[in-house]
Order: sequence, then C-alpha cells, then structure tokens
Amino acid sequence: MLDNIRILLVEPKGSGNIGSVARAMKNMGLKDLSIVGGGRTKSFWARAMAVHAGEILNGAHRFTTLREAVADCALVVGTTCRAGLYRSHSRSPQEVATKIVAAAHSGKTAIVFGPEDHGLSNRDLKYCQWLITIPAHPDYPSLNVAQAVMICLYEIFLAAMKTAPREMITRAPAESVERLFDRMRRSLLKIGFLDSQNPEHILLALRRILGRAGLEEKDVRILNGLFRQIEWYAEEGWRVVQEKEKKGVKIR
Amino acid sequence: MLDNIRILLVEPKGSGNIGSVARAMKNMGLKDLSIVGGGRTKSFWARAMAVHAGEILNGAHRFTTLREAVADCALVVGTTCRAGLYRSHSRSPQEVATKIVAAAHSGKTAIVFGPEDHGLSNRDLKYCQWLITIPAHPDYPSLNVAQAVMICLYEIFLAAMKTAPREMITRAPAESVERLFDRMRRSLLKIGFLDSQNPEHILLALRRILGRAGLEEKDVRILNGLFRQIEWYAEEGWRVVQEKEKKGVKIR
Repeated sequence: MLDNIRILLVEPKGSGNIGSVARAMKNMGLKDLSIVGGGRTKSFWARAMAVHAGEILNGAHRFTTLREAVADCALVVGTTCRAGLYRSHSRSPQEVATKIVAAAHSGKTAIVFGPEDHGLSNRDLKYCQWLITIPAHPDYPSLNVAQAVMICLYEIFLAAMKTAPREMITRAPAESVERLFDRMRRSLLKIGFLDSQNPEHILLALRRILGRAGLEEKDVRILNGLFRQIEWYAEEGWRVVQEKEKKGVKIR
Repeated sequence: MLDNIRILLVEPKGSGNIGSVARAMKNMGLKDLSIVGGGRTKSFWARAMAVHAGEILNGAHRFTTLREAVADCALVVGTTCRAGLYRSHSRSPQEVATKIVAAAHSGKTAIVFGPEDHGLSNRDLKYCQWLITIPAHPDYPSLNVAQAVMICLYEIFLAAMKTAPREMITRAPAESVERLFDRMRRSLLKIGFLDSQNPEHILLALRRILGRAGLEEKDVRILNGLFRQIEWYAEEGWRVVQEKEKKGVKIR
C-alpha cells in the first residue's frame, strides 16, 4: 500500500533537500520519489543527506510537467503553508493522511511539494484534490521541504498502522480526469459559461467539487458524455434543433 | 508555555543539522536551543539551513555536561530509535507530547537528542524520565536529528493547540532530583543494597519509578530525609543503636 504513494517534488532547488526527502521516505517505508523539472540527485549533498536511502535517489523518476507526473494517480494531494482563495480546501496532515491511506489501497496517490522558495503555484494546485497545511507558528509557518515531507509521511505511517479502512470508491487515474476537465473547459467556453479571459477561475470550483467527490471511471465516462453533448450542441447541434423546430418537429 | 521547552542537542556533528533544528523550532514556536559539547552554530551551513531562524542560533546556550544542561528542568525527555533494557520506558511522540505540554505549564522541560551517529548513550538516558521513539519502518528506523526534532515539535504544537490540561503536580528541578539520586547511591552503597561494581543498574530502576511518578519539591525533601537517615545509620547510627541496646534501652 505504501508503494502506491508517490512523493513528487516540483522544481526542487537544494540537492541536500532531495537527499533528506529520500531518507525520510525510507524511514517511513516509501519508495516512489518523482521530480518535475530540475533537481540533482547525484550530487554530494544529495548522497550525504540520503545516508542509507541512496537507492531511492537512484530510482527517482523524472517528469517535465506536473500533469505527466500525476497522470496515473487516482488521488493527488498538494501542500501549502499559505492561505488564500485557491487554498481553502486545505486540511491537517492527519485528516488527509487517512484519505491517502484509504486511496492508496486501490490506486496510485501523489503528494506534491513545491519549490523551496515559493511553494506550489496556483497553476500547480489545480491538479490537487486536497491540500495539506501543516499547523505551524504564524511567525514562521514555512517549513523546509524535507521537514514537510517528513511530517506528512509520519502521519501516513501512523494512519497506515491503524489500518485505515479502504476507500469505498476506486478513483479514476488523474489523466483521464484531466482530459475530462479539458473537455469541460472547451465545452463551457463554447456555450459562454466560462469567461474566456479567465476560464480557470470557475473551473477550479468545479475541480474542487469533483475532487472532493472522487471520480470513478464510470463517473468520468458519464461526465465526458455530458460535456461532449454540450460541445456538440454548441458546434452543430443547435442548428439541427433549430431546423427541426422550423419543420414543426417537437423536440421533447 | 512553549518558551519553557528546551531542545537539547548532545554533541551534534553536522552544523547544517543544527540550523535545520533552529528552523524547525521557529516553525513550531520554540526558542530555547541548548547544546552539550561541540557543534558549530555560526558556520555557513548552520546559517543557510536556519533561514529565518538565525536568532535561535545566536541565542543557543552551551553546556559541558548533560547534567548541567538539565539542572533547572522539571521534566527531561530523551529520544531513541533503538529498543533495549534501558529503553523500555519509551513511548510514542503523541503520548509524550501531552506530558511535555502539561509539565511545561509550570516548569522547564527538556527534550534531548543524541549525536547523529549513535544517538543517546545509556549514560545520557538515565537523566530522562521518559523516552520518545518515533514510529518508523524497521528497514531504516534512524531519522535525521532535525527530522526527529521536527516530529516531536509538531506533536507538541498539536498538543498545545488542544490546550492540554495542566499537570497536577509541579515537578522539582532536575538538579535537586539529581542530588537526591547522588545521596541515594551513596547511602544504598553504604548499606550494601547496591552492587559496588554496578550501582547504576538498580538505581536506574529507581529513577524510572520516581521519574514516572514525578517528584515535587516536598517529595524530594522527604526522600532526601529518608536517604540521609540511611546514610547516618550506616556511618554512625548503628553504633548509637548498639550502645543503647547494650544499656538495655528499648529502641522502639
């Protein structure tokens, strides 16, 4: 089950931090380290801080975009120490750890950590169904990235020991959910529901709701059908309907 | 209350780790960093890892022995990732965090972390009324020292937020308890209760029991009285009693 949990670092700066993350992972029984963008795993400091977790560094996966890196994940959880409009679905490590353990029984799960200097961007956050904020003193709430990883993994380890109940649903992979959102954006732009200047704003609210629900494959199929229909209607369907109306054909 | 909690590093090796500890402390609202023995707080790596917690490094206290460093502490908690005879009073971070928060309302509390390479020695552990063992994967249960500090402080921060009840007793300072143990050792050696080859073994069991109880000043006075009496008896009292017996005086 712990093998299904991926630690995903976005553009990490310090290679010592990557090493510390690898050690924390091995301490808590995890293996899948993935990195989006740069980040040196072979430097002296990466090796030194990893100590006996060198094999996790060696096995680290590389991705160029966050979207690719979470493509096979059923649950994607972000981390942030900031509050704000896009961060209101943030929960405590304990609370989210239970969800992660439940979801990891049946599918891949990723926990995403941003770059040391400014954390995950709002653009990154949209891939996350849940956010973790680690409780901290307001004078200095920004934790070192490896420390933040450790606290999350510690809570996951505790939750796993409690043999948390399996999640009742089997979430669809993130990539198929992302394709759904692509279709959603396209179709809702066409019918003028989304503001073409800022379509993401409303979409984010929809992502939030569906993320909280957790989508299974069959839900994704249904929603894809719905938005395909909207798209069709916007492109040509309206014409068909209008013509039928002209001919006096009752639509419904 | 958090000001009453001291993070005590025994012979730390890596100055980067000291910096990371300082940052973790500021993240969780602590100030009192103390170091027994070496450990550079002014090095580049100490500063770099502390980031915005430089004032904690600057204010770090230095001690030559652990006994001095805990002299004013009412509760001393050690940390270990190993099991063993001297480590059987080890508890989870959660459990001990509650005790620490309760005790810190009325007196100084120290959490002691050993050197990176082999942790606290059995000699160090005898000053600790409680031990924390962080749950970890058996393949690699040894955490980086700054990571271990972070988990302990995270649990303390959570316990503090829950406004844990105050401890019902006000513990006496560690130094007065240590003087009690010195007297205990001396007196119990004199009456042959302790093995002069290894007096610490039995003493440790007594430390454990009294540590669990938590001694207030008045308890220390009473126990000091008891062992002073034992010492007196062993040195000269027996003669007085014998002489009185010779003269036919009833002792009791």
